Amino acid sequence: MRERYLITGFSGFVSRHFCEYLERNEVDALIKGVDVQDHDLNFADYKHLSFDFERIDLLAVNEVERVVCAFKPRFILHLASYSSVAFSWKSPLASFNNNTNIYLNLLEAIRKLPLAARILSVGSSEEYGAVREEDLPLREETPLNPTSPYAVARVSQELLSRIYVTSYGLDIVLTRSFNHVGPLQKDVFVIASFAKQLIMAKKANGSRGDLNAGDISIVRDLCDVRDVVRAYYLLLHNGKRGEVYNVCSGRGISLKDVIAMMADILQMRVAITIDEALIRPGENRILIGCNEKIQRSVGWNPQYPLQQSLCDTLDYWDSVL
Amino acid sequence: MRERYLITGFSGFVSRHFCEYLERNEVDALIKGVDVQDHDLNFADYKHLSFDFERIDLLAVNEVERVVCAFKPRFILHLASYSSVAFSWKSPLASFNNNTNIYLNLLEAIRKLPLAARILSVGSSEEYGAVREEDLPLREETPLNPTSPYAVARVSQELLSRIYVTSYGLDIVLTRSFNHVGPLQKDVFVIASFAKQLIMAKKANGSRGDLNAGDISIVRDLCDVRDVVRAYYLLLHNGKRGEVYNVCSGRGISLKDVIAMMADILQMRVAITIDEALIRPGENRILIGCNEKIQRSVGWNPQYPLQQSLCDTLDYWDSVL
Repeated sequence: MRERYLITGFSGFVSRHFCEYLERNEVDALIKGVDVQDHDLNFADYKHLSFDFERIDLLAVNEVERVVCAFKPRFILHLASYSSVAFSWKSPLASFNNNTNIYLNLLEAIRKLPLAARILSVGSSEEYGAVREEDLPLREETPLNPTSPYAVARVSQELLSRIYVTSYGLDIVLTRSFNHVGPLQKDVFVIASFAKQLIMAKKANGSRGDLNAGDISIVRDLCDVRDVVRAYYLLLHNGKRGEVYNVCSGRGISLKDVIAMMADILQMRVAITIDEALIRPGENRILIGCNEKIQRSVGWNPQYPLQQSLCDTLDYWDSVL
Repeated sequence: MRERYLITGFSGFVSRHFCEYLERNEVDALIKGVDVQDHDLNFADYKHLSFDFERIDLLAVNEVERVVCAFKPRFILHLASYSSVAFSWKSPLASFNNNTNIYLNLLEAIRKLPLAARILSVGSSEEYGAVREEDLPLREETPLNPTSPYAVARVSQELLSRIYVTSYGLDIVLTRSFNHVGPLQKDVFVIASFAKQLIMAKKANGSRGDLNAGDISIVRDLCDVRDVVRAYYLLLHNGKRGEVYNVCSGRGISLKDVIAMMADILQMRVAITIDEALIRPGENRILIGCNEKIQRSVGWNPQYPLQQSLCDTLDYWDSVL
């Protein structure tokens, strides 16, 4: 039977990779995409998928209700989010509205119908926040200690999910997704920004380049977006209702070492300039997740080595710049 | 020197009691009240206080900035809130906006100026949510497990407060305030609703009365509003920056026993009808707080026995009905 997916944040890069995952795996799917921005998919490129797209703002509750009611999805992949930590420091309220409030609108629409849809609530490793060295790698039961407005919004989303599961019987599976890496990511995110800067430098100057960065001593767990979307597919189908799952590689690497790996791939010598404006208040020093739970529950494990993720990311920027 | 207070939620009953506390203690204070609704104070009744009032919506960020910038308070008593758990089930988004978002607007206005004001962030015992018997009485370090949209909004407020203290150096003291009881409280809240119903019945039928209630087996920690406002005054002046304090009596009582106490005061026989519509999903069974921390830190302890609080509440309803 044809699977009906509602994808919010359809114009983003995770949605794009999710669609490519479905297509590659010949999933017979009908997809309703919604986003505040236009998308740039060519629907004709997909043989196994049918699409419908609408530009709506998830803050408009009537629009959300109308779409959910008309499409009646079996699966909802809720990717829409203002997911930049940096932005949330500049505009905490907009960050809150476009994380927590849009999610509440979606849940309310489903509750009111009611609709037996399974929702994937995408959360963030930022929810863990300032963690203690002895808590690494972070397990799902580690206490949350969010340190940015974005992270608080994500914690709220998770707490609300639990309420809607427990009190209203909604079918929600939750993630705490760690940093993504891969082609098509926007350069407001750190790895994409590094890749773009290095490719620009290479095209301009050859084997030498300058790179602007914030705090490059911080350690992150980078997960290839193609692994991430496979996790989302598996969780939508086989995840346990009301449970939260880390989606992560299980490995930590400093941003400094990421730059070194990229420089090595491109055979460049890179001069790093620390830009104070890029250093955030209350930055989390180190975030490394444990992925045992998702491995055990749905048989997922990461398949893309970081080296390949970085190569593919650099290739992507090389192709578009 | 004259103390400058900005009070949000000025038209509510807690604000009224706070002003009466200042007046009774002859505090020389200049008060700027703001609320979306009009107030019914007669400013001429207060000898020691000067007032200014403006009707504004704290969701309007420009209004908040203008008021904060013009008045430059030394103390901010942030009482504005959609504080009904029941309402938050009906309109979770409105509850979220009128708790978390209005608070964010206030914090942002202070951060941007910047202003060296001390803010009292009023939270709720509902943040503890579904607690284990062995965690009673609830201490500030007990993990939070919110079970209503209102409670999640309050947890968000608390998490945001911590971020603004840590990352922006704002001077915020936090409370988790348990159920209030006392004169002037609106009858959307349970104890006031009981008092109103009983007084109406008494006036209509004398010594017999019917009372509609939800789940009356739940146990709550009832704190007299006059004790609550004294706690707020002490915390504004002597609380420790970034710390959260329970404001509670330390005693638990079931709603059933509250009704019995009231019936006894009024010398009435009360027939209780359980109204299913008043039973909430995911109700917390029992909330009893520990008030050792606030006792130790600022020397506060509750002074009104419950018997007196209930008598005064019933007298109040007798005077207005």
